[in-house]
Amino acid sequence: MKIKEIKAKDLNAEKFISSKVRDIRRIVGKGLAVNALSGGVDSSVVTALGHRALGARLKTYFVDNGIMREGEPRKVAALFASLGIPVEVVDARRAFFDALKGVTDPEEKREAITQTFYRKVFRDLVIESGAKYLFQGTILTDVDETVAGIKRQHNVFEQLGIDPKKEFGYKILEPLVQLRKDGVRKVGEALGLPESVFSRIPFPGPALAARVIGEVTPEKIRLVRKATAITEKELASTKAFQYMAILHEDRVTGMRDGRRVFGRQIEIRCWESVDARIATPSRLSFDILEELADEIVQKVPGIVSVTYNIAKKPPSTIEAV
Amino acid sequence: MKIKEIKAKDLNAEKFISSKVRDIRRIVGKGLAVNALSGGVDSSVVTALGHRALGARLKTYFVDNGIMREGEPRKVAALFASLGIPVEVVDARRAFFDALKGVTDPEEKREAITQTFYRKVFRDLVIESGAKYLFQGTILTDVDETVAGIKRQHNVFEQLGIDPKKEFGYKILEPLVQLRKDGVRKVGEALGLPESVFSRIPFPGPALAARVIGEVTPEKIRLVRKATAITEKELASTKAFQYMAILHEDRVTGMRDGRRVFGRQIEIRCWESVDARIATPSRLSFDILEELADEIVQKVPGIVSVTYNIAKKPPSTIEAV
Repeated sequence: MKIKEIKAKDLNAEKFISSKVRDIRRIVGKGLAVNALSGGVDSSVVTALGHRALGARLKTYFVDNGIMREGEPRKVAALFASLGIPVEVVDARRAFFDALKGVTDPEEKREAITQTFYRKVFRDLVIESGAKYLFQGTILTDVDETVAGIKRQHNVFEQLGIDPKKEFGYKILEPLVQLRKDGVRKVGEALGLPESVFSRIPFPGPALAARVIGEVTPEKIRLVRKATAITEKELASTKAFQYMAILHEDRVTGMRDGRRVFGRQIEIRCWESVDARIATPSRLSFDILEELADEIVQKVPGIVSVTYNIAKKPPSTIEAV
Repeated sequence: MKIKEIKAKDLNAEKFISSKVRDIRRIVGKGLAVNALSGGVDSSVVTALGHRALGARLKTYFVDNGIMREGEPRKVAALFASLGIPVEVVDARRAFFDALKGVTDPEEKREAITQTFYRKVFRDLVIESGAKYLFQGTILTDVDETVAGIKRQHNVFEQLGIDPKKEFGYKILEPLVQLRKDGVRKVGEALGLPESVFSRIPFPGPALAARVIGEVTPEKIRLVRKATAITEKELASTKAFQYMAILHEDRVTGMRDGRRVFGRQIEIRCWESVDARIATPSRLSFDILEELADEIVQKVPGIVSVTYNIAKKPPSTIEAV
């Protein structure tokens, strides 16, 4: 079934919200629904929209998969609590790291996270809660990229011939699937979300696992989490479309205290883009780049080298995994 | 034995040359000597100095180890022929690639090249020629770095307790060992070498093998050789201390013809430095950086991503291997 796109310029956010609220109430009836909030734009908007429709009959979880950014579980839950939306943080770190053990292929990493999330962690939560519906913030770009074979998005099923009801035991609702990122932002604003939420820079579904080349381990996540915190702090003022730190697996030569050491490399990417379909590296000043590199080699253990991406998308992609 | 340094500012190049010519004639007597010319500053200067002292009794080889830059064997031999110094090119590509097979550790790579050069290829040449002496362009910085454990230079033996006469069957003469790079350049100029030789940017002993992370194969050398040619052409006008292209082993995601591919990454480094002991990344314009990246992703097969080094030495080093 072809999805009918609603372009941001044609979108009446208020009418869209009313219409989706009606649809959701009709489908869910007196039943219960659940959703997983990651703190990203799409999942935040779908959380607010679902609560507008169902109130306390929508239970929202934040799944701490161990691969989120510094303080993210706590920060996201606190923010939504302040909006009157209670969020339960679920500690599933062990399950995700177990699933990621020994996996180096980028596509298999994404698949391991997807499977752990839908078949294991979320399946248990759905059964426990008695819910029959799962809300998801899938948007049209996720579907496009998955169908085109560019990147398997973690939240796309029907387009790949997977029936979530049969496979996972619950039905998935995707009220944002006709929109792209700019449309979702308009809906988020109309729902009264703070700008820090609906204008947040994109962050990938597989979280920091997408920022580690090769096998993902708790130790590597600690390193890339630290580098990410530094990068996001230093580059927030650039107003770029997206910026990130990537931990490479390759070992490179470095020097500490006058002696040779082998260390790892952090790659920084900072992108100018409208809709992520094409992108160019931001022309940051070398004052900023050197400061960023200095801070990373000082504060992130084992890092002796820092690079900055200078290739465009295509043939690069926004993320390295 | 402590080597007595001659600083460039205290160096009288003419007097240095006369004194070394006398020493060399005294040591070698009526015998024969050989040396290997790589085309680098140090080996070029020692070749010219040796020929000044011994004329045709010094036989100069260019060992084509398969890991030199585009057209390098031919260009270097032609240049020295034009200076009246005949150079014999020896095809030893097979021996070096065999020795490098399966070797991924940076230090072991350097060692494999050293061993192949001194114990195998050069040993045969020395025996064949009947020479008892090998001239080398070792300079004081090579000795310092090896002794300090920063980097095992390929041409340093006595300082590590190795007796070349016993180990390899010939004696090594190092007439430039009291000098650093700036002193060697003064001697090269006084010997009448063209500026393109004595001001050439530094290039490492292990050649392009130092520009490949992980195992060195003929295929990877072809890729990094192509990227090196593009980088040296694009950055020649920067007048930087040194610039290079490094082929990474990590695979990253890219897009070709609208579909996802996994490809490799080239890292560019361009350094500002006086003597290589400390260095900072050159502040190149993004016009140059983007042009360089575009050309590399277009012309080097399989490359989907290009980065630019932004970390200083230390804790980085000039080369990545």
